[in-house]
Amino acid sequence: MRIVIPLFDGFTALDAVGPYEVLCRLPDAEIIWTALEAGPVTAEPGALTLMAKVATSEIDACDVLVVPGGPRSRVAAKAGLADWVRRVHPSTQWTTSVCTGADILGLAGVLQGLEATTHWSATGRLAEYGATYTEERVVVQGKVVTAAGVSAGIDMGLTLASLIAGDDVAKAIQLGIEYDPQPAFDSGSVAKADPATVDRLRGLIARRSG
Amino acid sequence: MRIVIPLFDGFTALDAVGPYEVLCRLPDAEIIWTALEAGPVTAEPGALTLMAKVATSEIDACDVLVVPGGPRSRVAAKAGLADWVRRVHPSTQWTTSVCTGADILGLAGVLQGLEATTHWSATGRLAEYGATYTEERVVVQGKVVTAAGVSAGIDMGLTLASLIAGDDVAKAIQLGIEYDPQPAFDSGSVAKADPATVDRLRGLIARRSG
Repeated sequence: MRIVIPLFDGFTALDAVGPYEVLCRLPDAEIIWTALEAGPVTAEPGALTLMAKVATSEIDACDVLVVPGGPRSRVAAKAGLADWVRRVHPSTQWTTSVCTGADILGLAGVLQGLEATTHWSATGRLAEYGATYTEERVVVQGKVVTAAGVSAGIDMGLTLASLIAGDDVAKAIQLGIEYDPQPAFDSGSVAKADPATVDRLRGLIARRSG
Repeated sequence: MRIVIPLFDGFTALDAVGPYEVLCRLPDAEIIWTALEAGPVTAEPGALTLMAKVATSEIDACDVLVVPGGPRSRVAAKAGLADWVRRVHPSTQWTTSVCTGADILGLAGVLQGLEATTHWSATGRLAEYGATYTEERVVVQGKVVTAAGVSAGIDMGLTLASLIAGDDVAKAIQLGIEYDPQPAFDSGSVAKADPATVDRLRGLIARRSG
């Protein structure tokens, strides 16, 4: 099973590595890291560099497509990634995004008429792509699956694993990565966080995504 | 604040990237990826390659040390990583491990006399290092912090963020990465998973770590 993860300058590392860590444990998983140009790709904020082994131009089809997000997801989409997603999407069994990877699916036309989710700070953009924002952590619409921000990719990975290989395999993977989350705080969503924190972060994010 | 993450052939990607994604959002965080030799380092199972920018020989001190695990953590420790941890540890404000990164701290002598945790399949080894296994997801003992398997590094990152920069900063980071976990299953610990799944996985892991 070919699982392809496209990277772009300024991607968010956990968006990509969360689902990777789940999906690479599926039987017969082959993970392919790609980018418009093969080579090192640096995450946002900087300092983490992942290798894209293959250029997107060499990939015309895959079984599972996992598109991460990042502050510059729309820039990446317009630089060529949305065109590539549009080309590959008809071949997939599952086309998925984490966080603002939804911008890339959206600009590729994949979210038209669907319910979807994205990072909480970017939900307003879904309407531009003909999608309806749904306040769920993982949204499955036919073969298109979108996840909320950053860490939600792990939850999406498990949902996908169960859809692909069954509940028993997904549960074994969950145990393998000891995913029994116990954050010290309960501030992981707009509904739960302090409103002042939400406002401050919204401002910061708006400045970073420019 | 210099935060150093050492990599080794066969590390588990999420062990490293989970805490990275939290800690890189701390004010003034400088993340440094290192390895015994600078250059590309491949995770286990394969296909993900992260760049180590600096050789460990060039790093004598740091503020926060985050040691990931992987099936071959003991091999890496004995190949030189434990010696390096032993050298750097006196300079740190926080010395931490995720998953079987605890083997590397243990072989460096850092866990002697402390309570600690590691991946559920490797808890039996903690006694070899003079440590006492504690069934908690994140164990803080003075400046030494250990986390349970793989995904527990995210919880550890948040605990560290609050210890370093206060609860408000940690909560803002939790919101930033939308860490409001909602796994589809509740199979993330030995206590919660089906016993047959635990046994099967224990056998698989024993074979992989050789």
